[in-house]
Parts: sequence; structure tokens; C-alpha cells
Amino acid sequence: MVRALAFDVFGTVVDWRSSIVAELEAFGESLGLHRDWPDFADRWRAGYAPAMDRVRRGELRWTRIDDLHRAILVELLDTAGIRATESEIDELNRAWHRLDPWPDSVAGLTRLKSRYLVTTLSNGNLSLLTNMAKRAGLPWDCVISAELFRHYKPDPEAYLGCADLLDIPPAELMLVAAHPSDLRAARAAGLGTAYVARPLEFGPGHVPHDVSDDHFDITATDFVDLADQLGA
Amino acid sequence: MVRALAFDVFGTVVDWRSSIVAELEAFGESLGLHRDWPDFADRWRAGYAPAMDRVRRGELRWTRIDDLHRAILVELLDTAGIRATESEIDELNRAWHRLDPWPDSVAGLTRLKSRYLVTTLSNGNLSLLTNMAKRAGLPWDCVISAELFRHYKPDPEAYLGCADLLDIPPAELMLVAAHPSDLRAARAAGLGTAYVARPLEFGPGHVPHDVSDDHFDITATDFVDLADQLGA
Repeated sequence: MVRALAFDVFGTVVDWRSSIVAELEAFGESLGLHRDWPDFADRWRAGYAPAMDRVRRGELRWTRIDDLHRAILVELLDTAGIRATESEIDELNRAWHRLDPWPDSVAGLTRLKSRYLVTTLSNGNLSLLTNMAKRAGLPWDCVISAELFRHYKPDPEAYLGCADLLDIPPAELMLVAAHPSDLRAARAAGLGTAYVARPLEFGPGHVPHDVSDDHFDITATDFVDLADQLGA
Repeated sequence: MVRALAFDVFGTVVDWRSSIVAELEAFGESLGLHRDWPDFADRWRAGYAPAMDRVRRGELRWTRIDDLHRAILVELLDTAGIRATESEIDELNRAWHRLDPWPDSVAGLTRLKSRYLVTTLSNGNLSLLTNMAKRAGLPWDCVISAELFRHYKPDPEAYLGCADLLDIPPAELMLVAAHPSDLRAARAAGLGTAYVARPLEFGPGHVPHDVSDDHFDITATDFVDLADQLGA
């Protein structure tokens, strides 16, 4: 019996790519710069998993996503030969606090919240997730971040720590995510699993994940479909 | 410049005493017992500070409020000669998850949320605070508990940890509380302070706190007055 739903956020709840591309375009316009901003956005995002892995392997002490994002950004700007002030970089880096939800996210979460406890379970830091939710109207019951456990997903500590904070057995907690690897790790930790397809996460023209062999507890097309399937 | 408000919860946001007395009366009725339930409620609450102090002094390893509440309850039931099953005790103990807000709390918080980030900063554990908010409709932006720092207020780690999670300087965070001792500790940690009078917290006939010499940044009669004074 599932009592609580924990949501991956980047890509699952919010469309990071469209939001970041729009912020980069505005940044470029303000400086009179022309670049391939969608490519810049993809490289910014691509730097994120290797940076977390350095933390996970202990090569880097615990570091928040905000700071990982900023370090990647500084390097990308440098490579692109773009000069910006510290405060311009700070402001651009906070674009990750201003990501827009997918069109079904708020409506689906609002329905799901009527029947389940709904929380984030994201590698994003708590202030990022809180600022994002406030701006986007995401109706979380609480905001749980890998930062609270100092363990990034897919470390088991993140999934088990979330269940522990909610004071429920892992089996009563279901992870909702658009990423099979996250769901597989959640399942290994004893959580339920709900895959939600987000075929546009990486932009148009990408082949969607094939999850037919994964046998997740639920496979949904969006959060409204998830609410239908979960009886909310 | 204050950007976020952190709220003490028991007594400040919710009327624990009326709620607990009502739950104890229902519990008594279900077992056909007659006792002085207001007195029982006061003794339950009175056991809480000494229990936290044992954790703070290191005599007891980190223990959640839910578990402290339960240990106190078991002792009180025993002293009163009341026999109950484990599941009856669990259910009664979760009365602390079902506390009702003061009449102005939801309206005031809703206004304050429009201008400030609003979070709990309570010694209650995260699941307690989350379940309470869900039931009572408390519109927190996030739920922060002493549990996340394994330091109960008034330890400075709780106040500073809250500012750190929100990624703001302590001076941009204001504690809202009905208890002068909590506010004094917050001020010592560098936070702003807003005292809200809750003269009925301990029932009728109690002398309200005299805070005239404390010079807190704000003194308010309730959350609506607080919203007025904070321009929300």
C-alpha cells in the first residue's frame, strides 16, 4: 500500500531544457552575444552527472548542486570566450531555481496530493527546490533533497533517508521519475516505482526510453495519467 | 532585509492544548475512563522539555519527538493506572500530528507566503510537521525540523542550519515564535525576531509573557497583525 510519492524533479516535474535555453538566450541578448544556446544548455546539463559522481566517489567533499552548476557554468563560459561579472554568473546560475513545470505537472500533483503525501526527492539542493516550487506553484507537502542525506541519488541513502524522514517503510513510498536508472535504484532500496515518460526532456528528436523490460509498478504518459492510475 | 520567516509550531501556529485535551477525552470515552484530561495534557507537554534536554546533554542518543512523546505518554498512562494496547498508544501519540491551528494561522500564513518564504522551524520531527500541515492546510513553502540537524532548539545549530538550508544569511531569516526563550536564542544566532502573543497556549487563566524588555524586532497579537506589520 503506497502512502507517499517522492518525485524526481529535473526532467520529471520541470522542463529544464526549454527553461535553461530561454534563460541563456536572454543572457546572450543582454550581452549582445550569439551562440548555440541549446547546445550550451545540453553541455551545462551534461556536466552535472560527472560532477555528482566526483562527490559520490569522495574526490570532492559534499557540494550542493548550486555550486556544481556554477563551476560547470564558469568553465563553459570560459571555453566559449564569454566574460561575465560574478553577479551576472550568479544570476544566470539561479536559472535552475526558475525552471518551468511540464504542462500537466501542477494539475497532476494537485490531484495526487489529495490522496497521497507528495514530496520531492531530488539531487537539487533544498533552497533550489523550495524557490522553484514557490515560483511554479508546485504543491509539495514537504521538500526533501539529497542535501539532507549528503548522498546523491542513486545512492541508497537518499531513497531510504526519504522513507525514514517520512517515517514509513520503503515499500509504502513510491518514486516517480522519468529516468529508468533512478527507478531501478529506488526499487533496489525497496521503494515502489512509477515511470513517467518525458520524451521531450532532451529536446525534440530524441528516442524515448524503452522501459518495457523494466517492469516498473506503473508506467504513465504524464502526471494526469499517473493520477488516474493511482486513483487520485 | 528579511526574506524568509521560520515559524515555531507548537503553541505558535497550533493550539496543542485544546487539541490534545480533545483527543484525550475521546480516548477516555472509548475506554470508559474518567480522568482530569486537561491536567494529563499539561503533564504530557511538561515532560517534553526535560526529555529534549536529555538529548541535548547527550544522556540520550538522538531521539525524535514522536518517540519522546510516546515514552512520556507510556509513563503517564502507567502512573494513572490506565492499560491500553500498543496500537491504542500509537494512535493516541499521533494526536500531536493532528493539532488544530489557531484561528488566524492559515489566513495569516497565506498572506505572509505571498511576500516571504515561509517554513517551519520546529523541534517536531519532519513527518509530524508534514502530516500536521497536510491535515490543517498550513501552506508552508518547505518543512524544516530540528531533526534535520539533530539539534533541538535552542541549540544554535538549529537556527543556523535553517538559514544554511535556505541559503540565506541568518540576518535575512526571522524566527516567529510565542516563546521568548526561543526568540532570544534565535537572536543570539543572528536571526530577526517576531514575537506573537498566544495567551491561551497553556489554557485560560495564565499570565501572558511580558516581553517589553526583550525588544524583539516585532511584537504582534496574531499572524494577521504580523502580516500587517510585515507589509504582506
